[in-house]
Amino acid sequence: MSRLCCEDDGMSIAIQDTYAEDFSHCYGCGCLNPHGYQVKTYSSGKTTFTEHVAGPNDLGGGAFAYGGLIASVIDCHSAGSAAIFWMQSNGRAIGAETAPRFVTARLEVDYVKPTPIGPLRMVGALEEIGERKVIVTTDLEAGGEVTARGRAVLVKV
Amino acid sequence: MSRLCCEDDGMSIAIQDTYAEDFSHCYGCGCLNPHGYQVKTYSSGKTTFTEHVAGPNDLGGGAFAYGGLIASVIDCHSAGSAAIFWMQSNGRAIGAETAPRFVTARLEVDYVKPTPIGPLRMVGALEEIGERKVIVTTDLEAGGEVTARGRAVLVKV
Repeated sequence: MSRLCCEDDGMSIAIQDTYAEDFSHCYGCGCLNPHGYQVKTYSSGKTTFTEHVAGPNDLGGGAFAYGGLIASVIDCHSAGSAAIFWMQSNGRAIGAETAPRFVTARLEVDYVKPTPIGPLRMVGALEEIGERKVIVTTDLEAGGEVTARGRAVLVKV
Repeated sequence: MSRLCCEDDGMSIAIQDTYAEDFSHCYGCGCLNPHGYQVKTYSSGKTTFTEHVAGPNDLGGGAFAYGGLIASVIDCHSAGSAAIFWMQSNGRAIGAETAPRFVTARLEVDYVKPTPIGPLRMVGALEEIGERKVIVTTDLEAGGEVTARGRAVLVKV
């Protein structure tokens, strides 16, 4: 397939760039939404990762990101992770076909400490996988520290 | 006190309009953030309510709101509800003083069914209250149906 958003440059492929067009306008991760966060999730073998920069518009109180931003990027990263884990588990090559789209049935976020704005990194791990249901955990790091932890239950559309 | 954002019009007072200035730039509920959602939470006696309109920028897939928006507005509504419940429990009059600010320690969202964009309504209820910790549950309704349920553990700053 040709990817929806990027030319194939031989680098890693973000799973969101291989979503069907109808799912590519999501504010959190749609590669066709120029106003949104454009979260991009990559496989790193047994885990997944996303890098995102929280900016001045994402403030909560003081110099810290608001809780909704943290929940939003964990949510979209989790959906991307679920698609990656499902494809890997089913012997599908990322980038070779349109990725399946998972939607969130339940999201849990523990705000361990305040998250400063600036670069954020999320690492996703697989907790459970079934035919249609995937459970993903996420560590969100800022400044080298885990500031939030997520757990999401996702279902394949 | 004079409220930060609104003239006193004799109507109900949104708790966010009585936050301290440092907490009034939050993307989710800061009354001084012209780009944000400006969630406004009111007391309705034993419960709280917020009305919010999800627009075309809030899409996830198809005609439905993305999960991060739902989590964001539930999060900010929960923080506002916690402040209202705490003030009521401690005999404080809303609008008569700067409201205490609660931050989220844990957020849980169950996405019961897809949430269409358009008018949303959230109703908050008190599950537990202590000296500094408040637990709030929220039903989010769209088109007269509950489409998401939240539970948040909040701590007074």
